[in-house]
Amino acid sequence: MVLDDLLTPALVIDEGRMTRNIDRMRRRVADLGVSFRPHVKTSKSLEVSRRLMTTPRGPITVSTLKEAEQFFAAGVTDILYAVGIAPAKLSHVADLGARGCDLAVILDSVEAAREVSAFCAAQGCKIPVLIEIDSDDHRGGVKPDGPALLAVGAALDGKAALRGVMTHAGASYACRSTEAITDMAEQERAAVVGAAGRLREAGFGATVVSVGSTPTATFARTLPGVTEVRAGVFVFQDLVMAGLGVCAIDDIALSVLVSVIGHQREKGWILTDGGWMAVSRDRGTARQREDRGYGLVLDADGHLLDGFVMADANQEHGIVSRAGNQPIDWARFPVGALLRILPNHACATAAQHAAYHVVNGSREILARWERFGGW
Amino acid sequence: MVLDDLLTPALVIDEGRMTRNIDRMRRRVADLGVSFRPHVKTSKSLEVSRRLMTTPRGPITVSTLKEAEQFFAAGVTDILYAVGIAPAKLSHVADLGARGCDLAVILDSVEAAREVSAFCAAQGCKIPVLIEIDSDDHRGGVKPDGPALLAVGAALDGKAALRGVMTHAGASYACRSTEAITDMAEQERAAVVGAAGRLREAGFGATVVSVGSTPTATFARTLPGVTEVRAGVFVFQDLVMAGLGVCAIDDIALSVLVSVIGHQREKGWILTDGGWMAVSRDRGTARQREDRGYGLVLDADGHLLDGFVMADANQEHGIVSRAGNQPIDWARFPVGALLRILPNHACATAAQHAAYHVVNGSREILARWERFGGW
Repeated sequence: MVLDDLLTPALVIDEGRMTRNIDRMRRRVADLGVSFRPHVKTSKSLEVSRRLMTTPRGPITVSTLKEAEQFFAAGVTDILYAVGIAPAKLSHVADLGARGCDLAVILDSVEAAREVSAFCAAQGCKIPVLIEIDSDDHRGGVKPDGPALLAVGAALDGKAALRGVMTHAGASYACRSTEAITDMAEQERAAVVGAAGRLREAGFGATVVSVGSTPTATFARTLPGVTEVRAGVFVFQDLVMAGLGVCAIDDIALSVLVSVIGHQREKGWILTDGGWMAVSRDRGTARQREDRGYGLVLDADGHLLDGFVMADANQEHGIVSRAGNQPIDWARFPVGALLRILPNHACATAAQHAAYHVVNGSREILARWERFGGW
Repeated sequence: MVLDDLLTPALVIDEGRMTRNIDRMRRRVADLGVSFRPHVKTSKSLEVSRRLMTTPRGPITVSTLKEAEQFFAAGVTDILYAVGIAPAKLSHVADLGARGCDLAVILDSVEAAREVSAFCAAQGCKIPVLIEIDSDDHRGGVKPDGPALLAVGAALDGKAALRGVMTHAGASYACRSTEAITDMAEQERAAVVGAAGRLREAGFGATVVSVGSTPTATFARTLPGVTEVRAGVFVFQDLVMAGLGVCAIDDIALSVLVSVIGHQREKGWILTDGGWMAVSRDRGTARQREDRGYGLVLDADGHLLDGFVMADANQEHGIVSRAGNQPIDWARFPVGALLRILPNHACATAAQHAAYHVVNGSREILARWERFGGW
């Protein structure tokens, strides 16, 4: 099987690039002297995630209980569910725990802490909990130096198993330089180490001190006091990461295979059968210095087509054009020709597909790896 | 079962609203005196689409061969695949035809026409074809008055079954008034009727004259010469359609049920477990007069929460806030509270989910309808 045998659109992984990305992040985390809890939300694939994990039992990070279920069914037992727990999900969490999954949840309010402690008391279980710390004002978490931190610890009331603290410096995605990301990594580290210290001083358990984002993991200088790093998108990388300087465009391991279905020559458009359903509506590079539209364009063999961009998308149509109205050699793009689109955001693009087709620097398909979606 | 029994995020249809939307479009198309070929790409659901179709055998429009397969398996035989055909898909098309599916394809170039005629000649089949007409410069198609139209007809060479012409006035989505949409509907009609006339004069068959988009179908005054109308998103409607004046916000039948997972009170943020994975990255209203963020917000019973908007999204996190920094009654939004998000674009939001949960003006769940994805 080669890529030419697939019906388009289809999702492609370049395994060589992926392996380099994984090796690089593993070395980084090892150099930082912390343990690695890769986030599996990017790939939602057992095959990919096995290549990330340090042992077959984990640790991993998940973004949904569906991921926790799927990975637990595959033998992974050390799991952090890194989205603030909704009380209605506690039964599902406790059920996984009762079946042998060491599944920790996160929360960032006295309200949620009371829900969890009341649930644990009523059910006679002890759900592991990390308190989410707000290190960068971008989403959730309690302030590392505010009164809520200790109040949340107290509200857990010894009923749940308070393990420590975690944060995600999502603001690193908006940094304008690698120096700024290094500073953000230190801000992320300091927030969570400070919070853990306050919890310990107050007599709470806080052995886990967890940070993570692909940008901060890539550019952190040192991480004293941190016990583990989480990161996810590094496995495939994408144009947003390239725009941040986290990777080179040649490191991007994920692409969407599409077919040329028509031309609008006077407009300089190549029409394809890969629209936003295939690449997602994510336009993360629109906020960066270089806007990559819906993606950059490779030929079927994986070589970058200089200056070409997927400029627009309908549900099942893509429009590829050339920046600056440079002339197009139309003979290179007959109806039926295959192109590959590099995504803005690997997590979003991969989520539009049910499987990966694995190549390694050529059109030959080495494997098909399933992925799952949903909650 | 009530909505409170679901694990969030989850996709919800209000059946009463959907039925009103369907009835309104059916009446419109009947008043216009043309036949109705609803587009099933919005729902990708047999249950929803059965309510759209004029007979159990169709006609319908699809955007993927997966849709054609699924609906054919359910007894639908009159299908238009309304994305320019990629040559590699012709075997699949011919296979469906051989099994009894009257599946028509579209194309807009001499190149593609030659591929189809060569395929038909080689395989001894006669694939039905519509020529795609460019009525609004927004995507594909041949100009109705240009030389390509007759050249494409000639290139089909009698080997494929030329049935007629079709167009989609996608530019109607960018219209600034309902009058402009009415004008666009006339432009769409005139293009395709003119093209059909030229084909007939030149001795080609052109019995099918197909137009369609929800905005133009809603505001077309008359459609002389047109034989059928296609439309899809009307079934659920969405905030982009409301922004165009095509529907009221109260007509939107699709929403995403989410749970409150935290608060950032000093920022005026309610955090939920519904991020872009649940509502999609579609920000269609960003280009309209009123930008609705990632969506407007209902309570669990379906009542609009005045001034609230889903302002931002991460993969599994939503941020709901109130426009203009109006004060928030936090007691209404405890951790665990349910909210429903009205989508920018129903096609994109529905595509993020595997099933619909059907209610009718209350929290009671009347049915669960599966949907499919992929290609």
